[in-house]
Amino acid sequence: MRILGIDPGLQTTGFGVIEADGPHLGYVASGTIRTKDAARGDLPGRLKIIFEGVREVQSRYAPACAAVEIVFVNVNPQSTLLLGQARGAALAALVAGGLPVSEYTALQMKKAIVGSGHARKEQVQHMVMRLLSLPAPPGPDAADALGIAIAHAHAATSLAAMAGAGTLDRRQHAMYRKGRVY
Amino acid sequence: MRILGIDPGLQTTGFGVIEADGPHLGYVASGTIRTKDAARGDLPGRLKIIFEGVREVQSRYAPACAAVEIVFVNVNPQSTLLLGQARGAALAALVAGGLPVSEYTALQMKKAIVGSGHARKEQVQHMVMRLLSLPAPPGPDAADALGIAIAHAHAATSLAAMAGAGTLDRRQHAMYRKGRVY
Repeated sequence: MRILGIDPGLQTTGFGVIEADGPHLGYVASGTIRTKDAARGDLPGRLKIIFEGVREVQSRYAPACAAVEIVFVNVNPQSTLLLGQARGAALAALVAGGLPVSEYTALQMKKAIVGSGHARKEQVQHMVMRLLSLPAPPGPDAADALGIAIAHAHAATSLAAMAGAGTLDRRQHAMYRKGRVY
Repeated sequence: MRILGIDPGLQTTGFGVIEADGPHLGYVASGTIRTKDAARGDLPGRLKIIFEGVREVQSRYAPACAAVEIVFVNVNPQSTLLLGQARGAALAALVAGGLPVSEYTALQMKKAIVGSGHARKEQVQHMVMRLLSLPAPPGPDAADALGIAIAHAHAATSLAAMAGAGTLDRRQHAMYRKGRVY
C-alpha cells in the first residue's frame, strides 16, 4: 500500500510518500511545497500553489491513500485562520483526487515514530531516517509528513492484526477510517 | 462581466452569480452549498462537498471572475480553524478553475450595498433584492454572496470611471486586483 503523508502549512507544506507491505516500510519520495516566493498577501495565489503542488505529488506517485496532520490553533488567531486555509486547500486537493484521507495529530505521529508524544523535531527526523533506511535525515517538514505516513501504516498494520485475531468490529473500522486507532 | 460571489462557511457556503454591465446589474443565480448532512466530524468529506459544489457552480454559470468574503477570527479558536479550512477549500476550487479572485470584508460589502458597514443581515437581504430586482429577498447566506458580487461590480465600475478620468495609476490597479478599492 502506497501512502502519501501531508504536513500542511501556509509557507511550507511537507509531503512524504512511503510503500508499506505489512510491517515493512519503503521510502518513495518526500519534499516540500513552498509558497514563500508568492506575492506577499496574495492568499488565493498561495493556496493555488498548495493545491496544485499536492495534486502534482498525487499524480506523480499515485498513492492509494493519504494521511494528513491535524493542525492546532495558534496563539495568534490570524495565524490560525491562515493555517486553516492552507490545510483546507491541501485537503481539497486530496479529496478532489478521490483519495481516502485519514487524520493524525502530531502527538499520535510522535508516539508511533519515537514512542513518546513529546519527542523533539530532531528525534522525529532521526527515527524517520532509521525506519526508512535513509542515508541522511530528511528536512523537518518532509520528516513530519513521512512520519504521518508511517503512523498511518502502523495503524493499518495494527488493524489487520486485530482483524486476524477476530476482534475487529464495526466501531473499530469506523475509528480506523478516521485515523484514530492506536 | 459575470461575477461569482462566495460567502464561505463550513456548514453553509453561500454563492451568488450576477451579470454586471457598467452600473447595470442582473441576477443570474444564487443558493447555498450545505454540508450539514455529512457525517459528523468527517472534515475531509465536508471539504469535498464545498470544493465540488463551488466547482459545479463555476462550470454551470461560467463566471469571468470571483469575489470571496474575508472571514474573521471567531471567539472560539477551534471554530476559526474549521472556518479557515472551509474557506481554503472554496478558494482552492476557484483558483483551480483559473478564476481571478478578489477579496472583500463584510464591512466593505455592507458599505457598498447598504451604505453603512453596520447594516443588519435583513438590510443586506432587502437591498440585494432591490438592487437585483428580485421578487423576494434571498436567504441570508445567498444574500451575502450576491452582496459580495455586487461590491466587486461597484469596485470595477469605480475603477473604470477613474481610468476614464485619467487618474488610474499602477498602485490603484494593484489595489483593485486585491479588491481593496472603495
